[in-house]
Amino acid sequence: MMKNISSLSILNLKNTMNIKANNPALKSWIEVAENSDFPIQNLPFGIFSLGEETARVGVAIGTKIVDLKALFELGYLNDLSFELADFDAAVLNPMLLQGKEAMRDLRNRISDLLNVENQELQGNSDAIESVLIDAENADMHLPVYIGDYTDFYSSEQHAYNVGCLFRDPDNALMPNWKHIPVGYHGRSSSIIVSGEPIHRPKGQKKPNPEEPPVFGQSNLLDFELEMGFVTFQGKPLGDTISTEEADDFIFGMCLFNDWSARDIQGWEYVPLGPFLGKNFASHMGAWIVTLDALEPFRVAGPVQNPKVLPYLEYKGDKHVAINLEVAIQPENTEETVVANSNYKYMYWNMNQQLAHHTINGCNINCGDLMASGTISGPKEGQFGSMLEISWKGSKSVAMKDGTERKFINDHDTVIMRGYAQNDKTRIGFGEVTAKILPVK
Amino acid sequence: MMKNISSLSILNLKNTMNIKANNPALKSWIEVAENSDFPIQNLPFGIFSLGEETARVGVAIGTKIVDLKALFELGYLNDLSFELADFDAAVLNPMLLQGKEAMRDLRNRISDLLNVENQELQGNSDAIESVLIDAENADMHLPVYIGDYTDFYSSEQHAYNVGCLFRDPDNALMPNWKHIPVGYHGRSSSIIVSGEPIHRPKGQKKPNPEEPPVFGQSNLLDFELEMGFVTFQGKPLGDTISTEEADDFIFGMCLFNDWSARDIQGWEYVPLGPFLGKNFASHMGAWIVTLDALEPFRVAGPVQNPKVLPYLEYKGDKHVAINLEVAIQPENTEETVVANSNYKYMYWNMNQQLAHHTINGCNINCGDLMASGTISGPKEGQFGSMLEISWKGSKSVAMKDGTERKFINDHDTVIMRGYAQNDKTRIGFGEVTAKILPVK
Repeated sequence: MMKNISSLSILNLKNTMNIKANNPALKSWIEVAENSDFPIQNLPFGIFSLGEETARVGVAIGTKIVDLKALFELGYLNDLSFELADFDAAVLNPMLLQGKEAMRDLRNRISDLLNVENQELQGNSDAIESVLIDAENADMHLPVYIGDYTDFYSSEQHAYNVGCLFRDPDNALMPNWKHIPVGYHGRSSSIIVSGEPIHRPKGQKKPNPEEPPVFGQSNLLDFELEMGFVTFQGKPLGDTISTEEADDFIFGMCLFNDWSARDIQGWEYVPLGPFLGKNFASHMGAWIVTLDALEPFRVAGPVQNPKVLPYLEYKGDKHVAINLEVAIQPENTEETVVANSNYKYMYWNMNQQLAHHTINGCNINCGDLMASGTISGPKEGQFGSMLEISWKGSKSVAMKDGTERKFINDHDTVIMRGYAQNDKTRIGFGEVTAKILPVK
Repeated sequence: MMKNISSLSILNLKNTMNIKANNPALKSWIEVAENSDFPIQNLPFGIFSLGEETARVGVAIGTKIVDLKALFELGYLNDLSFELADFDAAVLNPMLLQGKEAMRDLRNRISDLLNVENQELQGNSDAIESVLIDAENADMHLPVYIGDYTDFYSSEQHAYNVGCLFRDPDNALMPNWKHIPVGYHGRSSSIIVSGEPIHRPKGQKKPNPEEPPVFGQSNLLDFELEMGFVTFQGKPLGDTISTEEADDFIFGMCLFNDWSARDIQGWEYVPLGPFLGKNFASHMGAWIVTLDALEPFRVAGPVQNPKVLPYLEYKGDKHVAINLEVAIQPENTEETVVANSNYKYMYWNMNQQLAHHTINGCNINCGDLMASGTISGPKEGQFGSMLEISWKGSKSVAMKDGTERKFINDHDTVIMRGYAQNDKTRIGFGEVTAKILPVK
């Protein structure tokens, strides 16, 4: 896609320039390790609790969490548009209802308070004690109430790999794939936060094409390496959001593991799409990194050929370079990294996904989650699912403990990590981890 | 399916016998016309408002709405497990969190208060004035907050018709169709209540197979005649609900129009299912008829051959006979009925749908909506979509005003109605109506 700075809207340029919290020169009075995911330039939002206390809004920096409820109660967040209930909430939704500009102001204000050159909070040791939490002592919760969850299928390499595995390499991409950011509705009730173990699902499958279907546990349990984005409140039903407007409706991004039971999925999904092969659980990261914090990592996307229809055209760099990795950790032993990918490999970007999703008038709500689909890079070692890594079970991956994997075993923990990095700053997402327990 | 009364669980029999509000001999002191959808044996729940007042819970009887908030405030609903906030709510969800038994007790109590042999409310004209609303003066609202919406595909004739139209008659049903109650996740944000007009959607479609896709308004706008059911709070993630348990997790049913833009759907839906062809809007009925009120209309379902897997087996009569009709009303003229169908034509029943949906551990929440899929009967005239009625646009339906339809025109209003009836009682659902406005 061409880079066309001159045609960027003046509003967008101005908005981006206003993100003073992104300044790579900023340093915090809170110690942050050099390889931390959470420097002062990041300031991702999440929901945490301590012991029996109620869950509330926090911001991560280094190994600490800033308690926004406490910060508000101490008067540090005056002159913003928020009220106590926005931070004393078990989900980010009330806060997010304030919209893009308000959230940008909030992040800038928190950045000021944590800046080594600012004494307001730094100089008040009593306040610091009630505001700063050790992250290792906190329980993290699902950060948003997700009204609707949509999963796209926007990585060309992934779609190509799946096409090769289930159809043929000469005809791997469906005819609509380069015209439409293909997506489908998923289940929001079963999206849970990183760290919660899940049981291997059971269901109906048809392992032998010549025999009737059988009931039993999934034997082809797989992860899908994805990124999700969380929306602000959209427009009313019947209205559309253009690619140009889309940034204003996207709050931030998170890691996302879209678990898939390939044997259940394979038998059920024609003609109406994935259902029980997916909806037993998906794991999302506890920290939502703002789209603002990711602005320095924008990159050009691939040339889209054939040319997309006008409602899918976009201006400027709308892809984001985010390094991604997946590791499998068998029980009581060290992990093995099985995939290194990058969010920049997406064919369709978030702006195109959101414009497509609303072109028919479909409304989006504050806290909706839209996931990328499996993100696979062009080379071996960059594939984002065991289906692709094991090439449909035809080859094994060696674990450091001497065992092998084609899919995920009971008691395995799958760990996903992601971070954007340039020569000045590293903006990370933490981890999404989940352990697989035996079938219930 | 065999009728096997002896194997019905004792609990279920006892529960059903306890539904004293179903007694066909009951008469109300409120006048109810003989052909009313809402006799004292029905008592469906909905959300209404009057003028500028806040929306709250009501129960329909004849042409009246009983204001449950007012009834509670006057002390008529003491000795039940509800509190004021359950009725002074803009959705039914808080009330439904009390569960099946509590809702049964509530309906029985309302039945008592409306019974001609009971003087408690009948004898208090001041109370009557604040409790009884003329339905024609009320605005009806979406009755539940829908966390997740699932659409099944459970009518054999519909699946067969679609298979004939898009594949071939000898191979019309997909191999999985008689083994799985096929379903997919839909969009909950765009489900709206009967009466709200919608705009014709626009989007990407491929009218000419030899040409690239184009952008424009949908020219193949269609209704789908469906019934939905609303759930109580389910079990935690990882647990399953059996066909035997399913009744205890189903609150009630409503009419449902699952609008479909066939041209958008046809181009987008392979391989991940319907998306923008559906999610521009769906209309649900304003009144939820309790599953209890429908117990007298249970009927045996079709013999399921091949035999289903054990987790999909069920005991007793779990289908429901509900007469359904669809009419099209061109602007400023009378309507023409274009379909007469019946919910009893379903191949898969609600118990099987819910057992299937949860067999992998997927959790359901209070207020989730599950729809049947288009309900088509075996004969012409009983098909539940214009796709089938016009046989993919190959024939027209004559309207009483002299015009013809293959699909839905701008300014048409589509009206769906449904009622269960035996020689003693008629339990109706009211109407789902929606007018199509031109593309926005």
